[in-house]
Amino acid sequence: MIITAEFSWPVRVYYEDTDSGGVVYYANYLKFMERARTEWLRSLGFEQDRLLRQEGIIFAVRRAAVEFVHPARFNDALLVQSRIKQRRKVSLVFEHDIIKEGDGKLLVSGEVQIACIDATKFRPASIPQHLLSRIPDVV
Amino acid sequence: MIITAEFSWPVRVYYEDTDSGGVVYYANYLKFMERARTEWLRSLGFEQDRLLRQEGIIFAVRRAAVEFVHPARFNDALLVQSRIKQRRKVSLVFEHDIIKEGDGKLLVSGEVQIACIDATKFRPASIPQHLLSRIPDVV
Amino acid sequence: MIITAEFSWPVRVYYEDTDSGGVVYYANYLKFMERARTEWLRSLGFEQDRLLRQEGIIFAVRRAAVEFVHPARFNDALLVQSRIKQRRKVSLVFEHDIIKEGDGKLLVSGEVQIACIDATKFRPASIPQHLLSRIPDVV
Amino acid sequence: MIITAEFSWPVRVYYEDTDSGGVVYYANYLKFMERARTEWLRSLGFEQDRLLRQEGIIFAVRRAAVEFVHPARFNDALLVQSRIKQRRKVSLVFEHDIIKEGDGKLLVSGEVQIACIDATKFRPASIPQHLLSRIPDVV
Repeated sequence: MIITAEFSWPVRVYYEDTDSGGVVYYANYLKFMERARTEWLRSLGFEQDRLLRQEGIIFAVRRAAVEFVHPARFNDALLVQSRIKQRRKVSLVFEHDIIKEGDGKLLVSGEVQIACIDATKFRPASIPQHLLSRIPDVV
Repeated sequence: MIITAEFSWPVRVYYEDTDSGGVVYYANYLKFMERARTEWLRSLGFEQDRLLRQEGIIFAVRRAAVEFVHPARFNDALLVQSRIKQRRKVSLVFEHDIIKEGDGKLLVSGEVQIACIDATKFRPASIPQHLLSRIPDVV
Repeated sequence: MIITAEFSWPVRVYYEDTDSGGVVYYANYLKFMERARTEWLRSLGFEQDRLLRQEGIIFAVRRAAVEFVHPARFNDALLVQSRIKQRRKVSLVFEHDIIKEGDGKLLVSGEVQIACIDATKFRPASIPQHLLSRIPDVV
Repeated sequence: MIITAEFSWPVRVYYEDTDSGGVVYYANYLKFMERARTEWLRSLGFEQDRLLRQEGIIFAVRRAAVEFVHPARFNDALLVQSRIKQRRKVSLVFEHDIIKEGDGKLLVSGEVQIACIDATKFRPASIPQHLLSRIPDVV
């Protein structure tokens, strides 16, 4: 079974996401990226609350590098386009492009490293094999 | 020892608090009120992380009624003025007025009921006596 | 044409919505209610960014009374069920029930008054007739 | 007059800042860094609402690279230590270290590029000379 490394998730901009500069508050794009990662995991059949209960793991952001190219505004319809850039035993690197629906203009791009963490000890843990095997290897 | 029911806590409005309407996003005033309650507890000698670890309790908001009279704006210096309206064995009712520093204009007023909760069972618990005895009885 | 006063909008709980108590941070339910109001307006054919540009109005929350009955948790699928309780020339009152999908358990209920505001003067304005006429009168 | 490139700003962790993983939600550290930049500007005598009204400029984040080393938790007292790494005509690069008060443990470090923006045209603008001259040149 081949799984594509690309996943797209729509986000609508509400007032809660904006600031008085008239645009989306910059830290909130990181929330949008996380929603996309969560829904991508769900689309592969993995619910994170179950992963926590059954395997005792959570995913934590270890590193994020984000470029804010153009601002999104209230009521904009956005798409978070995500792909896996690196797959390791204990971490994943995602690339996210947030584009505006309609014209497809690139607004924000980011690279985010996620580490698998033992939820009790708060230390690195191996990504469960049944999950890792569902994640496509990057050429 | 008499403890006054009044407590005042300053809040500065940052971009994170505002929305593209140019004013503080309405749900964020509830954060300001909670900061004031937290600092009021701290001023009485109670740290909530210690209350959780040592007594297994947390405080949860049970009910909030808020009136948004005038908007606060980016960079405004605010004061959250708080007082206890009701003191029961398992809950407290706070009154909060958020005013603008300088002119003292009333921006937001709210009444918030806080319940003491057993953090494990998520059920009502008695407020520890050593804490309750520090809270002034009203009238 | 009859328009129903009921509107239902799904919300997924992400990490961004929760707090270290293990549940949704209480002020965030107000964001969920606003998303529902925004999408309800959109379902009637009204985009708020266009209302601002073309008619110079925004909707601002004037009053909110919320009861927090049971907590929502990370990854829960929620439904915000909304209906108009009062329709006036310059304001609307919404009733929102946030329930858990699946078992339909009531988590949070709120009553929120929205005022139509002149975006320049920040003063009450009449709800445009073409919008008001689309909102069902409450018996 | 010599102005130091170092600026330290205290931040208290409230429930609003945490998530159900029991730690500060990762995107919220970016808010803490921005509070520090705002207060650093204020300490130099510059209020951003006045800069907007009088000079028509705002500062927008153009790029952020953040490393999340150790988590902060509810009720922690943090310090955001900031210094200017690069000073250009239209942009500044800040280095921020967020440490835990008391033991001084490094929790999060970030590099953030801020661009001066014409608030009307949303295009790069020169940092006003009277402000730039207050910012120490980096060796």
